[in-house]
Amino acid sequence: MALTEAQQQEIAAARAAEQRTLRPTVPALEAMLFQAIPVLDHGFIRVVDYMGDDAAVVQSARVSYGRGTRAVTEDRGLIRYLMRHRHSTPFEMCEIKYHVKLPIFVARQWIRHRTANVNEYSARYSILDREFYLPAPGQLAAQSSSNRQGRGSVLQGEEAAEVLRLLRQDAMTTYDHYAWMLNEDEAGGAPDPARQGLARELARMNLTLNTYTQWYWKTDLHNLLHFLSLRADAHAQYEIRVYAEAMMQTVEAWVPASAEAFRDYRLGAVTFSAGMLAIVRRMLAGEAVTQAGSGLSPREWRELMATLGREEG
Amino acid sequence: MALTEAQQQEIAAARAAEQRTLRPTVPALEAMLFQAIPVLDHGFIRVVDYMGDDAAVVQSARVSYGRGTRAVTEDRGLIRYLMRHRHSTPFEMCEIKYHVKLPIFVARQWIRHRTANVNEYSARYSILDREFYLPAPGQLAAQSSSNRQGRGSVLQGEEAAEVLRLLRQDAMTTYDHYAWMLNEDEAGGAPDPARQGLARELARMNLTLNTYTQWYWKTDLHNLLHFLSLRADAHAQYEIRVYAEAMMQTVEAWVPASAEAFRDYRLGAVTFSAGMLAIVRRMLAGEAVTQAGSGLSPREWRELMATLGREEG
Amino acid sequence: MALTEAQQQEIAAARAAEQRTLRPTVPALEAMLFQAIPVLDHGFIRVVDYMGDDAAVVQSARVSYGRGTRAVTEDRGLIRYLMRHRHSTPFEMCEIKYHVKLPIFVARQWIRHRTANVNEYSARYSILDREFYLPAPGQLAAQSSSNRQGRGSVLQGEEAAEVLRLLRQDAMTTYDHYAWMLNEDEAGGAPDPARQGLARELARMNLTLNTYTQWYWKTDLHNLLHFLSLRADAHAQYEIRVYAEAMMQTVEAWVPASAEAFRDYRLGAVTFSAGMLAIVRRMLAGEAVTQAGSGLSPREWRELMATLGREEG
Amino acid sequence: MALTEAQQQEIAAARAAEQRTLRPTVPALEAMLFQAIPVLDHGFIRVVDYMGDDAAVVQSARVSYGRGTRAVTEDRGLIRYLMRHRHSTPFEMCEIKYHVKLPIFVARQWIRHRTANVNEYSARYSILDREFYLPAPGQLAAQSSSNRQGRGSVLQGEEAAEVLRLLRQDAMTTYDHYAWMLNEDEAGGAPDPARQGLARELARMNLTLNTYTQWYWKTDLHNLLHFLSLRADAHAQYEIRVYAEAMMQTVEAWVPASAEAFRDYRLGAVTFSAGMLAIVRRMLAGEAVTQAGSGLSPREWRELMATLGREEG
Repeated sequence: MALTEAQQQEIAAARAAEQRTLRPTVPALEAMLFQAIPVLDHGFIRVVDYMGDDAAVVQSARVSYGRGTRAVTEDRGLIRYLMRHRHSTPFEMCEIKYHVKLPIFVARQWIRHRTANVNEYSARYSILDREFYLPAPGQLAAQSSSNRQGRGSVLQGEEAAEVLRLLRQDAMTTYDHYAWMLNEDEAGGAPDPARQGLARELARMNLTLNTYTQWYWKTDLHNLLHFLSLRADAHAQYEIRVYAEAMMQTVEAWVPASAEAFRDYRLGAVTFSAGMLAIVRRMLAGEAVTQAGSGLSPREWRELMATLGREEG
Repeated sequence: MALTEAQQQEIAAARAAEQRTLRPTVPALEAMLFQAIPVLDHGFIRVVDYMGDDAAVVQSARVSYGRGTRAVTEDRGLIRYLMRHRHSTPFEMCEIKYHVKLPIFVARQWIRHRTANVNEYSARYSILDREFYLPAPGQLAAQSSSNRQGRGSVLQGEEAAEVLRLLRQDAMTTYDHYAWMLNEDEAGGAPDPARQGLARELARMNLTLNTYTQWYWKTDLHNLLHFLSLRADAHAQYEIRVYAEAMMQTVEAWVPASAEAFRDYRLGAVTFSAGMLAIVRRMLAGEAVTQAGSGLSPREWRELMATLGREEG
Repeated sequence: MALTEAQQQEIAAARAAEQRTLRPTVPALEAMLFQAIPVLDHGFIRVVDYMGDDAAVVQSARVSYGRGTRAVTEDRGLIRYLMRHRHSTPFEMCEIKYHVKLPIFVARQWIRHRTANVNEYSARYSILDREFYLPAPGQLAAQSSSNRQGRGSVLQGEEAAEVLRLLRQDAMTTYDHYAWMLNEDEAGGAPDPARQGLARELARMNLTLNTYTQWYWKTDLHNLLHFLSLRADAHAQYEIRVYAEAMMQTVEAWVPASAEAFRDYRLGAVTFSAGMLAIVRRMLAGEAVTQAGSGLSPREWRELMATLGREEG
Repeated sequence: MALTEAQQQEIAAARAAEQRTLRPTVPALEAMLFQAIPVLDHGFIRVVDYMGDDAAVVQSARVSYGRGTRAVTEDRGLIRYLMRHRHSTPFEMCEIKYHVKLPIFVARQWIRHRTANVNEYSARYSILDREFYLPAPGQLAAQSSSNRQGRGSVLQGEEAAEVLRLLRQDAMTTYDHYAWMLNEDEAGGAPDPARQGLARELARMNLTLNTYTQWYWKTDLHNLLHFLSLRADAHAQYEIRVYAEAMMQTVEAWVPASAEAFRDYRLGAVTFSAGMLAIVRRMLAGEAVTQAGSGLSPREWRELMATLGREEG
């Protein structure tokens, strides 16, 4: 597991230090606070702070005073309306901060979401731990033959075993050499006093992309949901999707009405172009539309029929 | 004053609803929470939520676990180091949300700071109150003769009285016509059933720029300090500077070590170009440098001498 | 019209100064460059610079070298694919800069789009012109009775005449007083040497929100299309929609394939939630779905039936 | 060198296709356009498009019509004034787009600058080339003993040789295994028909951080100068500083007046806190100030004395 005993003691201490506050507070998220949710083989996410709740979304939508007196059902309706019509600014009024441990190749995808605040563990300044991601056997997938950025069937037998062996061996070898080049106590070995040791900012280049890093990552609810809509999606790479799914749990504890609206109107939603909508209307009116008569390209037609659950076209 | 009795009751209710939390909590800011700090004649700022504290800045700089065990003096030193060397990302880990009431011409300056979340009262949707800013007599300043965007001496006597009279009269007249055009109950008068009333989104165009609006404004500590460095500065227009100064009070309650470092290294700081620094070094070595021998333009030379407190040059 | 003779001469001079470049160049947009497209009674937009074209979108999607050799039809297909699947970063590789003259209340909506670069005419520094927006008679609409932020039927007869009279009179009176308070040559009158004149940064507060301002506004194609999807939409206020429509013309000249894809997949598009899609599938399968059996709220059901063109439900 | 013959032919073709434009055009930058400036052992930067020039900075500062008639010396003065007083928005009106080839560990630092548009070569979709960064012998530096994120003296003799050998060997071995796991034609070997091959999105995790990637990177002049102020600085890691220095050449060709002002007021500039400035004033007045009487901490005092060139203190 990803946490050392010292870290677990720190978390326990933080969880023991209860304070009084006048701020909006969410007991279901407080129950999770600081605790690591394991992801992949050595990674985790944990919520380290938050601001606001469902009512804060409503409050800023109303720019009203205080917490209001309206019933929760009305708040839920307003949140659903805001989500359905893509009114994004009220969702920006909530903020959350995560501590995340993740492989570097996942971090490289993740950082492309620019509207967030990040403090990453610095391998210029410090020494990375000897931890690297190795896929579980069920995730060792072949390249998809139909999708240039997807996975196909799971590798079997000897090929799978050899892939795993190479990934492990290369990560260990490159880490050993990293530690040797550093020639420092902290790197784990006994430093050779006859050698100077390579600068940390250089030695790190020998590590493989499955090495784990960690960061604090803070964003607002609107941008978090945008991140989740892309990364909790079935087309996202598995190794980032599992982080998104763990974060989704925290969102459901934190802002249940917003999370529900997000699931309904964003995660499972589909967008139809004007041309696609016209075809749906014609079909509902009883017309037998064909691709040839649809005005859509074959590819778009296939996408539409798949969406409508009419594979035969 | 800016708050109605109903609003004050809501604030009192919010302040009575204390909760328990495990999050970083700042008692000095809790003491201010929700309470309006008056600004100008009808405006205010009030903190409605916050996330993080000085220790959160330190924590993200260290990307360490838990709240750490280091002494406060070390934290203060690290915060000063981060501020002095413009390491901005740790300060992004704290967040604050304000409710602000302000004249529209001030809002137009303020909104130019793009790295913030905003929900403004909508005059498309609702009716603005009959409230407008009138400068106090000591603020009725003439155009500066030396600075195209500054103020000179205070207007006196009849001119001052006439300016104030015109500002008040025009604001009242345009508001009265706004209300008449709306022809709605909410606008205060008795609507004329024979008239339809103009759409709110159109009628608002008749209001003057000193009409008050309000918004929720949320940003992180780094961007807040950048805002304050520009708007709490002596060159900022008085009408926005007083908001910045009120916010500075809340920053001092919230993150005292960061606020102190900000005052030392940013608010009162000056930047010297390489050429200016070379002159300072020559002067310290005892040389009698003149503008002609300085390599600076006359304007830069004057700026430098003023900074060094040597007006004679 | 919005341009003075001096301005028109400058535009003519700029258009006469042809240069040679190796950059991607779009003749259809060059033909429009610098020329003002009139909007509202005194406003305009004009393109003052641009970077990239449809091929630059394709190029960055391929991160390929040079301009490629693929046929235009393939490029069009790739652009449509990128738009349909909301791959936004390739569209960020094109940039455009507008000079816009617009009423202040429109500028206040517009500036909420934060991902843009803006330089606005400063009324702290300079004196605004005596120009203000007055709606054409066909735009003097009543408040919508069904939509709190929409317009209903057009005002008629005496009410319409009186609204227009008030808007014109108040804009002129407040401008006259603004000029009197300034007491400057540039403000148009003969300054009274016995008076000091109020600072520009203060006097501006007396102007009404339909006064025209102007700015340079620069953004990338992705953010421009997002702006247009909101502001060229039927729900946008007419006074900003006409600006969006004028900009849409420039986008069609500039990046015709991207503009076409945007029209198809974004402007006319509708989004269905998972629940709504399930109902469409049931209806296509011949089931007579009712609101009661739909799982949708009455409001969502009405929205869905309207989208599907089945008003009766 | 980093470019294949095919790429060089494409660049030659692009450079042969001259167009006519009415846009601001900079001959000195046109002369560089598309051409790769080598950086490190296999990297490069090249300008692939740009918008605006020094005059565009001035124009937006004046929000004036056309290109103005003022003399160049006045424009230079205004640009220096804007830079000195940190008026940033006029510099946002110019935009530039680079194609960059760089090691992944450099890309990870670079991407932290969020205000830019990026399209990176996708190793989910495509196969990375067998190219990795190996430091030149003069760059194989030891860890600094005084600065946790700096370099000390250059490694010598056997240690240097062994470090280089390990870096090369590990990069080659991990790349060979990457290619083996892919089992694809494009990866260079003869695929084994009996194996499925690992998905590209997984296989990439075996590569080391000195593998080269590439991207299109586009930003405005203000944010570019901010990037350069951090990355062309002596404290930046050598491997990113050489990119910044190559970009600085392009900035000097593109916007010479802005580049000059940037060198004078930003690159070589120092910031003094209010407390430091007070000490400088006392010293200029002839007082012999000591650390004890300075009000500064020992560390700040040392920093100040070093800045003033008075090491003895």
